[in-house]
Amino acid sequence: MRVVVPVSGSDPKTRLAPVLTPDERRDFTEAMLADVLRSLEKTDRATEVVATASVACDAPVTVDERGLDALVNDLLAETDGKLAVVMADLPLLTPDAVETLFAPDADVVLAPGLGGGTNAFVSRHPDFRVDYHGASIRDHRDIARAAGASVAEVDSRRLATDIDVPGDIAEVLLHSDGAAADWLRDAGFELVVTDSRVTVERV
Amino acid sequence: MRVVVPVSGSDPKTRLAPVLTPDERRDFTEAMLADVLRSLEKTDRATEVVATASVACDAPVTVDERGLDALVNDLLAETDGKLAVVMADLPLLTPDAVETLFAPDADVVLAPGLGGGTNAFVSRHPDFRVDYHGASIRDHRDIARAAGASVAEVDSRRLATDIDVPGDIAEVLLHSDGAAADWLRDAGFELVVTDSRVTVERV
Repeated sequence: MRVVVPVSGSDPKTRLAPVLTPDERRDFTEAMLADVLRSLEKTDRATEVVATASVACDAPVTVDERGLDALVNDLLAETDGKLAVVMADLPLLTPDAVETLFAPDADVVLAPGLGGGTNAFVSRHPDFRVDYHGASIRDHRDIARAAGASVAEVDSRRLATDIDVPGDIAEVLLHSDGAAADWLRDAGFELVVTDSRVTVERV
Repeated sequence: MRVVVPVSGSDPKTRLAPVLTPDERRDFTEAMLADVLRSLEKTDRATEVVATASVACDAPVTVDERGLDALVNDLLAETDGKLAVVMADLPLLTPDAVETLFAPDADVVLAPGLGGGTNAFVSRHPDFRVDYHGASIRDHRDIARAAGASVAEVDSRRLATDIDVPGDIAEVLLHSDGAAADWLRDAGFELVVTDSRVTVERV
């Protein structure tokens, strides 16, 4: 099964702009991508990257400027629906979490992201297609069922934690010692403990 | 093994005050508690509730006004460290997620919450103790290791998703059809899909 990691190479992670410059956002994106690729490689899955602009990484990269839906739906058509897609902004990913995604014996396996997104999927059904806008996890459940596919959802915090906004950064420092965590520490981010949840500060 | 669910019965979930009145926060807390107890019961684990004031639920309730640390550490001392504690604000919990918590063969099993908390633990070591202030997941790792206990952490989105602030409410509507989700729908909450993450609106 082809395993594809889509990533924005041009102006990635715009919602991190309050804490990172454009160059830093590109570097941090490449560090998160490195973490994702390493976890996938440790499970012996050959992985391809599809990027909207060139990115530095240890996997074959295809540059494709189209939006995510067009790109992934073309790949689903090409592969007769036998495809896995894992997002590039999951630096908490581990090989065990990858195995969780591939384990269920269902036509379509969905990994929900926090906030209604779909952070990864495995499709083994010819008619599954994606629609990443809005609450995509609900749409993907509906699309899979409408196609007559059996659906499983995985319960993984590591697959659910995508890093989109400054408030997400603490999770990387709390639960990873990979390239993204190293990058953040080198850039001066550290955990700040308050009475409620943990946040980060850049020093 | 004793399984204890601590819950605030007096003025719970104060950080939900922007969207819920004090009475509503108590009702919603009891609905979340009902979801947690039902998932625990389905795994055939007898569960006790310890509350700071009386709460309505289908389990034996002990009222104890002390803070969480004193209460749980006394229980750990009483039980020679053989204790499981599951927080009451985890309405996404399922029987499978409960089994994930009890599965690892380690002296101390920790379920991290989003934001650095510890949403559940299983202790099988006489010297494990808790400290819920600040980034408790880090403290609990350290306390367990200092006691010479083996430590495992579970990777469960459902155990990680505690409902503390208005921004957490969408997860309940996205991923549960239990008592808490019903309560929210009856109270007029519905999902609002934006370009980025999903939020809720009260209508």
